[in-house]
Amino acid sequence: MEAIGITRLCHRNLLPTSNPSLTSTFISSFVIGRTSSHNYNRNFPKFLVSATMESSFKPEEARVPVELPLPAPPVTKFKIALCQLSVTTDKERNIVHAQRAIEDAADKGAQLILLPEIWNSPYSNDSFPVYAEDIDAGGDASPSTRMLSEVSRSRKITIIGGSIPERSGDKLYNSCCVFGKDGKLLAKHRKIHLFDIDIPGKMTFKESRTLTAGERPTIVDTEVGRIGIGICYDIRFQELAAIYAARGAHLLCYPGAFNMTTGPLHWELLQRARAADCQLYVATCSPARDGGSSYVAWGHSTLVGPFGEVLMTTEHEETTLVAEIDYSVIEQRRTYLPFQKQRRGDLYQLVDVERLTCKGAK
Amino acid sequence: MEAIGITRLCHRNLLPTSNPSLTSTFISSFVIGRTSSHNYNRNFPKFLVSATMESSFKPEEARVPVELPLPAPPVTKFKIALCQLSVTTDKERNIVHAQRAIEDAADKGAQLILLPEIWNSPYSNDSFPVYAEDIDAGGDASPSTRMLSEVSRSRKITIIGGSIPERSGDKLYNSCCVFGKDGKLLAKHRKIHLFDIDIPGKMTFKESRTLTAGERPTIVDTEVGRIGIGICYDIRFQELAAIYAARGAHLLCYPGAFNMTTGPLHWELLQRARAADCQLYVATCSPARDGGSSYVAWGHSTLVGPFGEVLMTTEHEETTLVAEIDYSVIEQRRTYLPFQKQRRGDLYQLVDVERLTCKGAK
Repeated sequence: MEAIGITRLCHRNLLPTSNPSLTSTFISSFVIGRTSSHNYNRNFPKFLVSATMESSFKPEEARVPVELPLPAPPVTKFKIALCQLSVTTDKERNIVHAQRAIEDAADKGAQLILLPEIWNSPYSNDSFPVYAEDIDAGGDASPSTRMLSEVSRSRKITIIGGSIPERSGDKLYNSCCVFGKDGKLLAKHRKIHLFDIDIPGKMTFKESRTLTAGERPTIVDTEVGRIGIGICYDIRFQELAAIYAARGAHLLCYPGAFNMTTGPLHWELLQRARAADCQLYVATCSPARDGGSSYVAWGHSTLVGPFGEVLMTTEHEETTLVAEIDYSVIEQRRTYLPFQKQRRGDLYQLVDVERLTCKGAK
Repeated sequence: MEAIGITRLCHRNLLPTSNPSLTSTFISSFVIGRTSSHNYNRNFPKFLVSATMESSFKPEEARVPVELPLPAPPVTKFKIALCQLSVTTDKERNIVHAQRAIEDAADKGAQLILLPEIWNSPYSNDSFPVYAEDIDAGGDASPSTRMLSEVSRSRKITIIGGSIPERSGDKLYNSCCVFGKDGKLLAKHRKIHLFDIDIPGKMTFKESRTLTAGERPTIVDTEVGRIGIGICYDIRFQELAAIYAARGAHLLCYPGAFNMTTGPLHWELLQRARAADCQLYVATCSPARDGGSSYVAWGHSTLVGPFGEVLMTTEHEETTLVAEIDYSVIEQRRTYLPFQKQRRGDLYQLVDVERLTCKGAK
């Protein structure tokens, strides 16, 4: 074959390794100019290939910092409920309605409840400032999360509280609160990737007109396992799911309101892809469809298993789905298809910036 | 809400940026110990959140080195053919058979031909050493690639030559050769991720018993666009597709022979996921199914568009599919759904190690 040269081979590893003694590493020579060549295949002289092979692979370095082992979950099997709720312009009704759905699901044995994205308000830039609550202030300033806290404590269940518009100072966020079975707020995720899309004649929406993006990933240990949180558009970014998996997540929960264009195109595909690539459970919950609203949700709340298989899904009407999650399946799938341990850290590395830069972060 | 502290906030960016002057950066403090805390949500004091927000997002830093712009392809529209070939134990027959399929596809106007994984040999560890060819030596030492070179030159077409077992010194590889329309070898991809899986009672195969893994990604500029190459199991690793996309690929080609277990589970899902996440074309080509062989291929060669939509697919029988690719759709999709520009380089970064470490690499 034609041998195509490359100017320099510098194969030393320039990123942090799993070796704890390597607390500092010097990075150099990372900016690669475009060349006039139209061929990008590298055919190193054979002796160089042989020289590098001994030191290659490094699957443990494909995640920076190194991937954490899957933790033993507090429960192996439990029931999850996806409450696909109808949402109206009446906030008080929405809160009472959500509470009833949660209590019904708890009556059916659900230990984990997932609510939809923006369930206390219409999904519109006009509504967000009107329906927003000051979650940090709590009490009367946040009747939606007060209800979630109370019902999680009274029913001894874990709630991934979908999302509501949050007011914090002069900013608005799209925020998901997680409550433990003692009613305490365990975590709050602010949507990281704002939904700004423009498909002419089909769907245009710009959350960034009113909302501010969150600043960090959210992974939380609950009574039903370690859960990574994303809100709707966050699911498009495979890196977020991958860093949750590397932090030892058992389950990813995405409250989401895909629309009538992106829903049929991508909603199930993305859920299945995240689950199959990360080999963990993915649960999503959408508002029920309301054809009369300005933003029409696709519905189709779904639970996906760690082979990317749809375990439970619904159409677009209001309903609550209850199904069992069995975490022992995760380890089984990862044994069958061990690609979590077959990555090529010598070729690509996914950096979790928060874990890399913040001591004590996880 | 409960405010949960974090020991230290160190938000300075510790990885290379798109700023060429930043040719060295000191990395520290990357090893994160497990703590006894069961809550991993970070709620920084508000003033810190505000302070960091100004410097956050950095979508251009989500790919290290920085993502290259999509190059203008030499052609916008062209026809691709996927030759889903039957494979026998008769190597000479396999070569003649492949040549006829390629010529038929060229007669139908195809400018790019994609062949299956391991099309000149049965797919088995016993066969690989017997059917392997010395591609670098060429001529009589590699009748399969000699045929590909001759037919690409005589018909003035580009061929992604599926894969064949390659002998190089004392090693065997699973290798894909790319020929330009002048018959010259443009690139050779050696399967990077070897197929070692064990699903009891369903599918067990360990390529690593006989094969050696390739050492680098392969992206090549052809007369029909910039193409990233993966072979079969390589498709499971989203990072490879993502670094090809960041190098400006228009199309990913995966010769592959998924089996009767992983085929129905994951073959189409992975193709669609890679296409939708990277917003480019994905083409795959499998051998036709032979129920009598030790390894039974799933078939289902497919072309997927940059919305993750299946444009063309087949069942398991021998056939050649011809369809049009329109690269202008890629830019349109990326304008509609601009998530390639919405990544959070402040939260995660995907490092292309070869481009990072090798001056002149692309």
